[in-house]
Amino acid sequence: MTFPATARADHELGVNAIRRARELTEPVLRELVDRLGPSLGGIGRYHFGWWAGGSGAAGKALRPTLAVLAAEAVGAEAVDAVPAAAAVELVHNFSLIHDDIIDNDELRRGQPAVWKEYGVPAAILIGDALHSEAFGVLLSSGHPGAPAAAMRLATAMREVVVGQVDDIRFTARPWTGEQAVSVAEYQAMAEAKTGALLAFSAAGGALLGGAEAAVADCFDRLGRHLGLAFQCTDDVLGIWGDPVRTGKPVFGDLREGKRTLPVIAALAAGGAASERLGVLVERGVRTDFELRLAAELVEEAGGREFAEQEAARHLAEVEDCLTSLAMPAETRGSFDALAQSLIGRSR
Amino acid sequence: MTFPATARADHELGVNAIRRARELTEPVLRELVDRLGPSLGGIGRYHFGWWAGGSGAAGKALRPTLAVLAAEAVGAEAVDAVPAAAAVELVHNFSLIHDDIIDNDELRRGQPAVWKEYGVPAAILIGDALHSEAFGVLLSSGHPGAPAAAMRLATAMREVVVGQVDDIRFTARPWTGEQAVSVAEYQAMAEAKTGALLAFSAAGGALLGGAEAAVADCFDRLGRHLGLAFQCTDDVLGIWGDPVRTGKPVFGDLREGKRTLPVIAALAAGGAASERLGVLVERGVRTDFELRLAAELVEEAGGREFAEQEAARHLAEVEDCLTSLAMPAETRGSFDALAQSLIGRSR
Repeated sequence: MTFPATARADHELGVNAIRRARELTEPVLRELVDRLGPSLGGIGRYHFGWWAGGSGAAGKALRPTLAVLAAEAVGAEAVDAVPAAAAVELVHNFSLIHDDIIDNDELRRGQPAVWKEYGVPAAILIGDALHSEAFGVLLSSGHPGAPAAAMRLATAMREVVVGQVDDIRFTARPWTGEQAVSVAEYQAMAEAKTGALLAFSAAGGALLGGAEAAVADCFDRLGRHLGLAFQCTDDVLGIWGDPVRTGKPVFGDLREGKRTLPVIAALAAGGAASERLGVLVERGVRTDFELRLAAELVEEAGGREFAEQEAARHLAEVEDCLTSLAMPAETRGSFDALAQSLIGRSR
Repeated sequence: MTFPATARADHELGVNAIRRARELTEPVLRELVDRLGPSLGGIGRYHFGWWAGGSGAAGKALRPTLAVLAAEAVGAEAVDAVPAAAAVELVHNFSLIHDDIIDNDELRRGQPAVWKEYGVPAAILIGDALHSEAFGVLLSSGHPGAPAAAMRLATAMREVVVGQVDDIRFTARPWTGEQAVSVAEYQAMAEAKTGALLAFSAAGGALLGGAEAAVADCFDRLGRHLGLAFQCTDDVLGIWGDPVRTGKPVFGDLREGKRTLPVIAALAAGGAASERLGVLVERGVRTDFELRLAAELVEEAGGREFAEQEAARHLAEVEDCLTSLAMPAETRGSFDALAQSLIGRSR
């Protein structure tokens, strides 16, 4: 893989930012999990992959990185953002643990999900513990910006939960007709479920870096649009992504009958391809022939183009936010790299 | 029922305090639950009994009352304590909703538990939402004492969850021998599971009333000992309580094989009755004859007396805390009434 010179430099900045965020955040998380005592702490270490047979790596550290970069953007040190970075990792992981119960997902990061390994009661309780710890780590930091950040975390978590409920409720609705999920409803759900927590990462990091509320609001918008751009891209990749690069089966989301933006937009578009797609998805898409046909109809009805345009629009909003905030060139480059690593997976 | 003159006056103070706390807190809770949106909000209203077929009354309002009295004790108005009162009701109810899933309890306040009515996913999510809202309502109050109170709430919730995990793990251990649950282990679990949240109620109310950390610590101790006194009493009532007054079957806790202080203390006491009890509970107590025998052996081995002494000891600690804090006579009377309403149910 070759990069043009600037993109390569940005890429390195991004890699460094992720390493910096991870190195600062992980020891704090480990200490918090250990403090939960032998039994609950052991379950926490299992989830994070911190055990003899575990991966040792808890995800991509995207959210902590966003917090760290936001603090640096407002002139503070990376270390100032750590309570926000740790808090967002804690709530993100609490959500994963509870979502795996809710969605009956048996695997998480290549190992049995917590509920599968330790049972539903233990999974509920470790999730609840991480949820409280998130507020605890923020507030106990004593940072002047911590109470405001913790308040935003509470608001973000309300959005995340409401988004999760809407996502579940969507599955009970028909694909077509007046009761179908609209593009606007889907986007509101995606903003709540995915955007709100990235918004907190950025705004929380900025607040701990000493930013005023108005500046934090700008970082909130940045994180929110980044989350939405990510979701649009993820929805496109879920159908047309290269299985080798995404790690998911081809047409995976269509196979699972997941409601995603390209499909919802294609069904709402009207016209021959849209109507044919409606008949197909109402019946259920099962065979390889039907999967390929459905993907073609989504594309023909304009669903793929719409989702890609939406991703580009949200990415442009991210760039607008970044430009409106004066920040060191290196920090700006790191943000760009982070956005690319999220969005650029399709290229 | 007749009271001596002072006790009757105190009783009225207690009733007034509960009414005051409930009237101030409930509108705040209703507004928060409504803000969760149509779907999640509806589940919340169902849980709290705020629906056409519901009871309309969400529990005894003990925890909010403790918060309100603590604020009044340090010279503030009842209304100042409301964010802490609402927060503690929110986390208490979130715990009930999650505990009902964990314990497979199908009924809550005379109606199907949330998980039974709406399913486990909805019950997990409404619990998570109330959990976040608790921190939100505290921090958004803008009270100078709110960040310190929210930090104590996070610590209390860690204790509650660890206590709940220990309680579950105890059931897997033998009744007798070296692996048996010790009196000290049981008491630590009870302090975490029951005491920590009452400690937060009192300390949180005091902090919002403007108390210094040291004074809040004293209220923390007060709430903690009140919780422990309550638990000891509840354990005695669970075996010997009058079913008409407790609403529970006679020998209820023995029938369910629950580990409670009188039984654990009796098994640890040694001697003939203790050993005979050990043989009986290891085999399982089932028939009415066995239940009566077990209750007699617990009493003979000193388990009941120990639990009653412990209740009295914790109540004396509560009184010590109250005496060490200068407060208006009326507030003191209300505290005494609240303690009596918790503890005095056996008399």
